[in-house]
This record gives sequence, C-alpha cells and structure tokens, in this order.
Amino acid sequence: MIRILETKERIIEDNDALAKSTREDLNNRKVFFINLMGSPGCGKTSLLMNTIPCLKQRYKVAVMEADVDSDVDAKTIESLGVKTIQLHSGGLCHMDADMTARGLQFLGLEDLDVVIMENIGNLVCPAEFDTGAHLKAMILSIPEGDDKPLKYPLMFETVDAVLVSKIDAKEVFDFDEKRFENNLRIRNQKAPVFYLSNLNKEGIEAWTDYLINKIEEFRKS
Amino acid sequence: MIRILETKERIIEDNDALAKSTREDLNNRKVFFINLMGSPGCGKTSLLMNTIPCLKQRYKVAVMEADVDSDVDAKTIESLGVKTIQLHSGGLCHMDADMTARGLQFLGLEDLDVVIMENIGNLVCPAEFDTGAHLKAMILSIPEGDDKPLKYPLMFETVDAVLVSKIDAKEVFDFDEKRFENNLRIRNQKAPVFYLSNLNKEGIEAWTDYLINKIEEFRKS
Repeated sequence: MIRILETKERIIEDNDALAKSTREDLNNRKVFFINLMGSPGCGKTSLLMNTIPCLKQRYKVAVMEADVDSDVDAKTIESLGVKTIQLHSGGLCHMDADMTARGLQFLGLEDLDVVIMENIGNLVCPAEFDTGAHLKAMILSIPEGDDKPLKYPLMFETVDAVLVSKIDAKEVFDFDEKRFENNLRIRNQKAPVFYLSNLNKEGIEAWTDYLINKIEEFRKS
Repeated sequence: MIRILETKERIIEDNDALAKSTREDLNNRKVFFINLMGSPGCGKTSLLMNTIPCLKQRYKVAVMEADVDSDVDAKTIESLGVKTIQLHSGGLCHMDADMTARGLQFLGLEDLDVVIMENIGNLVCPAEFDTGAHLKAMILSIPEGDDKPLKYPLMFETVDAVLVSKIDAKEVFDFDEKRFENNLRIRNQKAPVFYLSNLNKEGIEAWTDYLINKIEEFRKS
C-alpha cells in the first residue's frame, strides 16, 4: 500500500508542474482550454455537438477526444467541421498533464482560440490530474442519481462548473434537484449548476452564454 | 511515460499473485466471491437490494461496499439484515487484491457461503485488477448507451456476466439491444446478458437463477 501511494504522490507532483507550464504556454498564445469530464454515457459528446456550433460562430475551436479505445466520438465531433484529434489512452483511466501536452502539440495551437478536451468517462481519476485546463466542467446525468457528490467527492470539489444532463428523462428517475444541490454544496460552494437536455436543447443557451463569458474574460486578461 | 508503465506492470504482477492466493483460501473455505462492477449510478446497490433477499433464503451472505467516500450504500445494504462492511478506497478508483484481502479479513469468512463486493463506480480501472473473485459481473444501464463495449473494452472483455439495467426507461433512450449485443460480442463471446429493471423487478429472477446455479456448481466442485 505505502509503496503505491508514494509512487502516486511523485506522479502527481511531476504532473502539476507540467500542467502549470502547459497553462502558461496557452496563456501566452491566448488559447482557452476546457477539460470536460463525466461518467461513461453521461452525454459529453452530445454536449459538444450542441456547444460547438455556437462557439464556432465566434472562435476557432478544436477538440481532443480522449478514449480508452475506439474512434466513435472523434468521428462524431469531426462532422461539425472543427479540427479534431483522438487521444488513445491505451487503457489508462484519465488524461494527465503529459498526455494532454502531447495532445496539444499534436493538435497544433496556431490559429486556435478554444480547445476542448473530452476526458475519459470516469468520475474518479480524471479529477486528480491537473491537465493545464483553464476551466474544468463535469456532467452528471439525471439517471446517475442525486447522491453522486457524496460518493465522488474530489470530482465535485475540483470542477468550476457542473452540468446536469438528460433532464428530458426527469419524469422516469428519482432525482431531486434540491437534494442534489445540498449534496453538491457540501463539496463545492461556488460552481454554477446548469440543467440541460442535449436531446431537446433545453438549458444549452445558459451554458454556452456562461462559456462565452469565461472565454471573453480570459481573452481580456 | 515509460516509468509509469513499468510501475503499473509491477503492481499488476504483485496483485495477481495475491488474488490467486485469496481465491485458493476462499475455495478451501467454500466461500463464493462475486465482484460487481459498473459506472456510477448504474444500479449496483439497487441490484444487491433485489438479489440478496433471494440469496439469503439459501446461503449466508455478506457484502463489502467499496466507496471512495461516504457510507450511503453500506447503510442501505445493512438494512437487509446481512453482514455488511464498508471499504473506503480513500480516493483510489478501484479495488485491488490487497484492499480486497484486507476487506475479507476484516469481514471474517467464518460461517459465510457468499460474499459480494460492490466495486467503485468506474468502467476502467476495476477491470484491470483481479481481486480473487470467482465471478465478475458488470452492470451497464440503458441511459449509458449501446456503444459502451467499444469504448471500455477491458471491462467488457473480462467479465463473466453482463447485466443491462434500467430497462424500465427504455422508451426514453436510444438503446438498441441488437446493436449492443453486436458491440458486446466483439469484446466477449461468452458472457450471458441479463436485461432487468431494479424498479419493477423485471428480469431479476433470470439473474438470481443464474447466480444460484454458479454458486451450486462452485459448492459441488
């Protein structure tokens, strides 16, 4: 046990130093970088399909699709006509700063304003690794339940924004918004919550408005 | 990168040796051990709530609830009147053979016939670690989508049984059983698939029948 933990600490320290230098490089280039996280099937790719057409009107956007295996999501995103690359994690369960930095280099940052990385579907490990992103957002889908902030504390603690997806299926599941927000506030006092449906587009505009605001703040800084 | 991979390989080798000796100990004691995996919110605890009352009629059952943090699930299971312990992974994203062996020792195997471990909600890391279990089962919930075997290959490859939960919500989601089974069979030719609803109990009996069969086979061996 102790041996594993020591290894882990050393990896995290190296990781955070690299993430910091990635962020500095992105700052110099004025490229805003978003790390999007969430469980398998929570709707990360669908959210990007609804978010990118709006961002594309204002910014030069690119996407990095992290997947354990398969290129299903990368092909879907590419159909929007934005630069898309796929990051094969080869069985690893998260993106760390090293894999992210290699991805950004492979993508090429010239001429870009915004890069979005869709992380591996996982509520645990991705939360531990600073990737260099300016904004960390996570999606929780209604069917997963309102108790998840209690069970996956670090993810809910570290994100800047929380999106609750699949609200179109609310009638079918016992998800109480008040109970959810009480649980969330134990972990995170600040992150705004966006309830949305990728199916009927409800709530998407509030999320893209928030995102555009964040990007504009960054560009002025 | 290379350093991390080497560390990981060494950990996996140590892990598999310990898992093997755990399984031998369980064989000698005639205790059948089940490792239940799946995404956050896929219905692992709900499945146990529906499975245990049936198993309890025949066997002495105990449960180990692995959680990153919180004791919500352990308390729920305890209400069924079976011996329940909680395993705090302290931020780790899976149960390995060492944590499992400590759990079994803490639980105490005297007088038990069946132990079920509910693993951390995660489709990636838990698949990599043999815990000493005799049966590995996973749950995929309908809202997660029928493409998941393509995206999380190792999990679908390594399990002995696949449960598809939340079929009561089938009308609301675009989940095609045929497409799912085609995707699954790319990864796993043998694992039986059980479609079920923890809400209205549809399909639960086929699963518990299967489980009882497996337990009886084990007890006769």
